[in-house]
Formats: sequence, structure tokens, C-alpha cells
Amino acid sequence: MKATQQYIEANKDRFLDELFELIRIPSISSESEHKPDMIRCAEQWRKLLLQAGADKAELLPTSGNPLVYGEKIIDPAKKTILVYGHYDVMPVAPLELWNTDPFEPVVKDGKIWARGADDDKGQSFMQAKAFETMVATNSLPCNVKFIFEGEEEIGSPSLAEWIVKEENKKLLKADVILVSDTDMVSDKVPSICTGLRGLCKFEMRLTGPDHDLHSGDFGGTVSNPVNVLSWMIGTVLDKDGHITIPGFYDDVLVVSPEERALINQAPYSDDAYKKSVGVEVLHGEKDYTTLERIGIRPTFDVCGIQGGYSGEGFKTIIPSEAWAKLSFRLVANQNPQRIAKLVEDYFRQIAPESVKLDFHFYEVGKPYVCPIDLPEYRAAEEAFKETCGMRPIPAKSGCSISIVSVFERELGLKSILMGFGLGADNIHAPNENYRIDRFFKGIETAVAYFQHYCDL
Amino acid sequence: MKATQQYIEANKDRFLDELFELIRIPSISSESEHKPDMIRCAEQWRKLLLQAGADKAELLPTSGNPLVYGEKIIDPAKKTILVYGHYDVMPVAPLELWNTDPFEPVVKDGKIWARGADDDKGQSFMQAKAFETMVATNSLPCNVKFIFEGEEEIGSPSLAEWIVKEENKKLLKADVILVSDTDMVSDKVPSICTGLRGLCKFEMRLTGPDHDLHSGDFGGTVSNPVNVLSWMIGTVLDKDGHITIPGFYDDVLVVSPEERALINQAPYSDDAYKKSVGVEVLHGEKDYTTLERIGIRPTFDVCGIQGGYSGEGFKTIIPSEAWAKLSFRLVANQNPQRIAKLVEDYFRQIAPESVKLDFHFYEVGKPYVCPIDLPEYRAAEEAFKETCGMRPIPAKSGCSISIVSVFERELGLKSILMGFGLGADNIHAPNENYRIDRFFKGIETAVAYFQHYCDL
Repeated sequence: MKATQQYIEANKDRFLDELFELIRIPSISSESEHKPDMIRCAEQWRKLLLQAGADKAELLPTSGNPLVYGEKIIDPAKKTILVYGHYDVMPVAPLELWNTDPFEPVVKDGKIWARGADDDKGQSFMQAKAFETMVATNSLPCNVKFIFEGEEEIGSPSLAEWIVKEENKKLLKADVILVSDTDMVSDKVPSICTGLRGLCKFEMRLTGPDHDLHSGDFGGTVSNPVNVLSWMIGTVLDKDGHITIPGFYDDVLVVSPEERALINQAPYSDDAYKKSVGVEVLHGEKDYTTLERIGIRPTFDVCGIQGGYSGEGFKTIIPSEAWAKLSFRLVANQNPQRIAKLVEDYFRQIAPESVKLDFHFYEVGKPYVCPIDLPEYRAAEEAFKETCGMRPIPAKSGCSISIVSVFERELGLKSILMGFGLGADNIHAPNENYRIDRFFKGIETAVAYFQHYCDL
Repeated sequence: MKATQQYIEANKDRFLDELFELIRIPSISSESEHKPDMIRCAEQWRKLLLQAGADKAELLPTSGNPLVYGEKIIDPAKKTILVYGHYDVMPVAPLELWNTDPFEPVVKDGKIWARGADDDKGQSFMQAKAFETMVATNSLPCNVKFIFEGEEEIGSPSLAEWIVKEENKKLLKADVILVSDTDMVSDKVPSICTGLRGLCKFEMRLTGPDHDLHSGDFGGTVSNPVNVLSWMIGTVLDKDGHITIPGFYDDVLVVSPEERALINQAPYSDDAYKKSVGVEVLHGEKDYTTLERIGIRPTFDVCGIQGGYSGEGFKTIIPSEAWAKLSFRLVANQNPQRIAKLVEDYFRQIAPESVKLDFHFYEVGKPYVCPIDLPEYRAAEEAFKETCGMRPIPAKSGCSISIVSVFERELGLKSILMGFGLGADNIHAPNENYRIDRFFKGIETAVAYFQHYCDL
């Protein structure tokens, strides 16, 4: 057994204990009441990086939550790997659907059950422990920098703003970025993520009457904002799952039959997929397979809708207002700013004048592509071959990590998306979990990546 | 001044104080936590009826909230008027939109501000005080029975069940029913309600995946129940405000041009109407006026919708489920049971097989019509002429009081809908209010009705 593996083996329990400490801090970036938890979590990370062997680690202020920066420079002439991760997590509502306290990690069935167990505390912690392992076994082959942010789940606005400054670009100067925040195609087949969808998300609010009206007294005479909102949303997708907004597909990269065949080589079973999500019938865009629908096609999803009376029983009203949180996942080469404009124009054009329409755009994110002939990518292939015994499949994720395209634009660096999550991990949902064997396999593979990347 | 008027004048403050005591009990029938308040409120009514001069008053158990029954039989050979009202009120959410505590009545600008101030504590209390006035001035011309229920706002299920029993029909045996639970067409022009819309209301729940899914990982591969629900709702109304459900209009009474002209004689101003509801543009079924849309046309309104993430910020999920509370207001001669079936069949037929559909029908209510040539109606006209100095307009309400058609079916009695509410009273909404002058005018007119009805 290699020294690094021996070290990991000898420290397994402590690694998990440290991760659990991190998970216990409810660092929900979208809920302002958790502001103090964000600071606590960043501070905890700072200490963990120092303990792991960083020369220095500090909190860097931004206009939002602080960044955690750490580094170990063994030789300025050597290569530098920048490790990116995020310490914020998604909200936990609806709490009643959780089997255990989301912020008190429980180990059961070989998994850690908690918010952030996978996304991204568990995964980014693998990188920290891989680093510690190399430092402790005197095998760190290059310089390392860490940048962990506290706003990934709300679209990385502060990091994106921070990074445009020259001194900050200089601080993050590196040769490649390593990110563990994605899934593998299955627990049997390793994969490396080579594409991320972009994202355009916003809230649309409709106002009708200036107060809730009795639906008997007024029903039929004024526009009901919930009726109208539903109708507006209902026009966006046609029966074939195509988005009807004019111009929406103009820039979508047409993927070649060859690449589509490659995508469909990933292990996939309709039955297993249906079982994992608990549906009997899948539904998506006509003429595309499930893997293609995820990897190379844009989508439209309502992530939340609300209007009118939501309590027990019934209240016969015409609600004064209604809103929906809407998201489009985008693919290469769609421009999120252009899509945002198309979407707003479309809704404004179809909205009847009997309602008032308000938009609030959240951040938008560009799609990302990592070509599989890049040397940085090939090093990752070698690392997986070493630790998993087989060549990893290049896989396109349906997810979005908007900062990855910002890194590419601002730092001129590609990110290697070396994630160890699984579809069944329930990230962003109740009962998030992360397989402990994936956690340790991730540490091992990250160590291997450093070696193979420096051997290039 | 008549003795009855003198009595009312002398007791004004006490009448209001007693009403306020009643209002302070938060008797929200649709919220189970208020069960004890329902009993408290019924018990308070029982005492008030005895104080007002009833020979007896008692709570009658039902499968739901108790009924309050009271009577004064001065001579079995004389006519009997049955007074109906309800002691339950609507929920108060959203509480933050109330200017004052909904259950602590405040007098301001000549109005009582509180939940139930109009609907129906204020209005039914007028009847109790009219009764007291006649008893106290020794002018009660006939027998009186009172039946007050605690479930009108949830569709009167228990009273409708209770009333089919022969002994209960016998208990309520009367010649006419007097109800104060409707509006006048304006504060300047008295009116008597001659039509009520029926109601078919239900909750439709759609389930997609068995847990919330990450919209990146899964977006595009499974049906999003909020998208689907919105689309389904959006298909119900066409651009002209017509309901598209096949067969929906089959039984709708075609109102003659003459009657439509009569309806449109009621005082109405587009500008004032828009101002009262706070919209700049009205919207309704093509080729009908606002008054016709309310009085003689059915409607479709979503009274509440919810699905997915409703907190601060954004959560990029495909929600596991979504539901909407939907209502159709019906007009003569639509049969609510038939409409309920048409509606369910329609939604089941259009729903994609990729979602699961559940229906929960709340009670349904038949529309009601009171012909204006009935002697009971003419007595009401005379009463208004006496107290308001002009002939009241027969007006069709857009509202529903489902028990009124149940009374007609089970007791064979017409109800005279002698209401003193106004469109601006915000019933079922925040800041419900009731004009104090309407309250006392209602007492006076109810007294006059007893006289004119017995003079028939």
C-alpha cells in the first residue's frame, strides 16, 4: 500500500469527524438569518486548511459572504493547482420530509445523511484531505491554492465581482482548477464531467387587484393573477417538450451524431432511473434520450409557485398577487443574458394588460465545456484509471456551476470537474446523503490527480 | 318616531358592544385549531338569543360544529319566519395585510373593522336585534325561529346533512326564510338579492417525482408537476374568458335581453369599480357587462396555488408535487355535481401520464333564484321602501350560499336575501369592515319586513 493510502486509512475516523463539524454549521446562503453561520463556517474552513498543512489561510472580504483562501507554495517555479469549492448549502425546507436533522450528520447504510454531505462540504473536504495526505506523506508535487466561496448556491455573485480585480486574479494565478462538485454517471462507472449547463433564473410576480377579492362578488370581472400566471407558464412548453419562446434555440450547439452516441454509452437503465426518482413514466423533449436531455438540451422548470390561500380548507378569493420562481438550464452556446432578455420580452408580450408584471432576475450563468483532448483532462483520466481500475467516461452534466465559466473568462483556466456524487444523493432536496466509500475514493483520486498532472 | 325606532336608538351602544363580543371569538371554521372557538361562539349566540327574547335557545349537535337554534312561538296559528345566519368566519391570512387585529373590532370612519364585521356576524346580529326590538316593544307579529350554523364558509356540510332528518325539518317548519348575508348594489340604492351563484370547489394535486429533484441533474427528463399544473389550469379559459371544458355551458340559463337590461340598470361606474378593486383594466367574458359577468355567468378562479420552493432566494429544484385550490361559480341551471364530474373528467383526460393526479372535492352548491313576483319578495320591497324611501332593485349576486338551495329542496321554502353589505366591505379578505349605518338600517328594515310580511 502506498504511503498516501496508508495515511488515509489511518485517519479515516478523524476525517469524518472533521467533516461532521463542518456540516453542523447551517451555512444556508439564501437565508439571511444564517449570515452569522456563514462567517462561522468560513472561519472553520480557515482553521481546517491550516491544520491540513496550508502555509497560510485567511478570510477575504467580498460584498457578500467572505471567501476562504489558503495556499501552500512549495516552489514558485512549479505548477500550481487551484482548488475551488463552496461552503454554503441549499435551504432545507420542507423540513418535515427529512428523516433526520439536516445539520446533525448521521451515518447509516454506508452513507452520511445531512445537508451538505455531498454538495459541497463532503466533496470539497475530499480535496482538503487529499492535500493534507500529500503534505503529511511529503509527496505534494506542486503548489496548491484553495478558494472556497459561500455563495455558490445563489450563483456566486460576490466571487464573480471579486475576481475581476487584477490583484485578485494574481492571487488565484494557477495552471488548472480542480473542482469536486459534480456527479459520476454511476457507482460502477467512473466519469469526469465535461460539460455544465448554464442557468437563467428569475422570479416573475403578477399583481391583479390591490387586495384579495371575494370570488363570488368579483369573480368574472377582474383578471385573477394565479389564473394568468398559470396560463403564461403553461405556454412555454409545447406537447413535445420544446420551449416555444421565439429565438430560444437560435444558439444551441447542434451536437453531432457521433458525440450523441458517445453520450449514450454511459451506463443507463430506464427502470433504474425511474426508480431513483420515483416516477412510472419519464417525460422530456421529443427525439432525445434521457442522457441527451440532461447533457445537451436546455430546459424550463418552475422551481416554486405561490399565490392565494394555502392554508387548510378553502378560501374563495381572487388573490391579489401570484409569483413563480422560474429557471432555464442552458447549453452551449446559449448566452444567458440574451436568453434572459428573450424570456422577459416574451412574458411581457403575452401578459394581458389587466395584470401588472414584475421581474427579478437572479444571477445568470454561462454553460461550460471541457474538451477531452486537453492534457489537464487526460491527467484526470489517468488518476481515475489508477484508483478505479477503468477509464472514466466523459459525461455532460445537466447542472450549472456558474463560477466555472467565470473562471474561464477571468483567469483563462479550464476547470477539471472531478466529482464523486451520485444521482441518488438528493442534493438540494430532503435527505441529502453522500456515500462514505465515494468520499474516500475522492481523496485517493485527488491525490492521484496531483501526481499525474505534475508528470505531464 | 315609531316605538321600534326609539328602542333601537336608545340601545345603539349596547347593540354594538354585544356584536363586538361576538366578533372577538375567532370562529374560523376551516382551521381545526379553532374548534374550541366554534363552541364558544355558538354558546355566546345561545345566550344572546335568550337575552333578545327567545323562549328557548339551544345548541344542536351535528357531525361538525353545533347549530344554534332559538325560537319564540307567540301563537302556533300565526306565520313563522325562520331566520338563518352563520357564526363562522373566513381565515385571516395574510395577517400582515390587516391594519388592525382581525379579532379586535375597531370603529373608524363610521365602520367596524374586523373579521366577521359584515360576513356574517354583523349581518346576522341585525336580525337578532330586530327580533329583540320587536319583543321589547311588544310588536312581534308572528312566530320566529333562528338557525345559525358554524360551517357556512366551508359549504354547510353538517347543516345540509342534519336537515334531511324529518324531526329536524319539523323543527325548522316555517313559512319563509330570512337571510342577511348578501350585499346591496350600492350605498345609495337599496337592493334585494334575487340570485346566488352555485359553487363547485376542489383541490387538485399533482405528484411527479417522489422527492424534490435537483433541476440540473434531472431537468428535462421528468415532468415537473408545477409546469404541468400551470399548463392544465392555463387551458381552462380561452382568450375571450370562456371556459373551454366540454359541456360546461350546456345547462346555463340564457337570460333574456329584457332581464339583461334590468340587471344593467343597477348603478354602476367602471371607474368606481376599478378603483374599488385597485386595477386599471377590467377583464372578463367577452360580450357581457361587469354586472352580467357577476350575476348571470359562471367563472373559473384559482383561489390558491402552491408548489416547490417558496422561501427567500432561489432553490433550483423540480418540485415533487404541486396543488391548486380551484373554484367554479355556477349559474342557473347548472348542476354542480354534473360540473364536478365534467371538470374532473377534463383534467384527467388532459393530464400527462407522467404525473399522478388527485382530486379532493369540497362541498358543491346549487345556484338559487328568487322570482320577484313572490309575495315574500314583495313584502321585502315594501320594507325597503319604508326604511330607505325607494323601491329596491332586484339584483343577482355573484356569491354562493349553498345552504339556501338546500333549504329550498329540503324545506320547500324560499329565502329572502335581505343583505346590507357593500362591495367595499372586504369580506373574505384583509380589513373586512361593515358600515355602522348599514348595521342599524338593517335592524330597522328587518323589523319592517316582519310587519309587511304578516300584513300580506
